[in-house]
Amino acid sequence: MKVSIGADHGGFHLKEFLGERLSEAGYEVIDRGSFDPSPVDYPDIAFKVAADVLNGNRGILICGTGIGMCNAASRVEGVIAALCTNEYMGRMARLHNDANVLCLGARVMGDELAWDVTRAFLETGTMNDDKYIRRREKVARGCI
Amino acid sequence: MKVSIGADHGGFHLKEFLGERLSEAGYEVIDRGSFDPSPVDYPDIAFKVAADVLNGNRGILICGTGIGMCNAASRVEGVIAALCTNEYMGRMARLHNDANVLCLGARVMGDELAWDVTRAFLETGTMNDDKYIRRREKVARGCI
Repeated sequence: MKVSIGADHGGFHLKEFLGERLSEAGYEVIDRGSFDPSPVDYPDIAFKVAADVLNGNRGILICGTGIGMCNAASRVEGVIAALCTNEYMGRMARLHNDANVLCLGARVMGDELAWDVTRAFLETGTMNDDKYIRRREKVARGCI
Repeated sequence: MKVSIGADHGGFHLKEFLGERLSEAGYEVIDRGSFDPSPVDYPDIAFKVAADVLNGNRGILICGTGIGMCNAASRVEGVIAALCTNEYMGRMARLHNDANVLCLGARVMGDELAWDVTRAFLETGTMNDDKYIRRREKVARGCI
C-alpha cells in the first residue's frame, strides 16, 4: 500500500513532517505537492491525491482546517474522505466508514498528534458487519 | 433562516440538546429525526437534511464522529458539509468554505462545546474574495 499525500499552503509544513515520518515507518509515499508554502488552490491537490486513491492507494490531504480538502475529495466518486482531529476519529474512520482519504487541519492540531492520528488511520482495518456495509452503500448511492 | 437538524442513534441525545438550544435562541428548527435512540442508518437522515438545505436552509447533522454524516451529505450536489470539532473550524467553515451543513460527532465532543461550535457556524458570514470563490467553484466542478 502506497500513501499519496497532498497539502495546500496551510498544510505544507505538516505534509513535509508526515511525509518524512511515513517514509521512516516504511511506507512508500507519493507526494502530490504543494512543494513550497506559496498559495495554491486546495482542490487542485485534492483531485491529484483522489486519482491515486482510485488506483488503490490511501490518501492524506492537509489544509488549514481539513474542511476544504474534505469537501474537494468527497466530490470524487469512490473516495471516502474523513476529517479527523483525534485518534478515535482516525480509528473509527476506518472501522465504520472504510475511509480511504484522511483529511487533517494543520491549523487545528500539532505535528505529533497528526502523526498519531495518521498511524491510527493507516493501521486500522474495516468492520464489515452488514449494517456498516448497508450504510456505506447508501452513501455511495448518494440520492436524496 | 431555518435550521434543519438530524442525527443517527449516536447523535440522538446531542440533537435533542441542540434543538432545544436553537429554539431558545430564536431559530426555527426542522427536526428530521431520528426521534429515539434506536439504531438507524445515518444516510437516511443526512439526505433528508440535505433536501432542506437545497431549499435554502442550514443543516446540522450528528453521528458518533460526524464522519459518516459528512460523507453522506457531501454526496449531494449543492451541499457543502463541514465536520467541525472546535469553534475555529465552525467559523472557518463559513468564512472560507461557505459550508451550509455542519457535521458534529457526539462521541468526540461535549454538549456545550457543540453548542458553541453551532453558534460560531450559524453566526458567521462568508468571505467572498476571488481566491475563495475560485476554490469553491473548483470543488463544485469536482473533476479529477
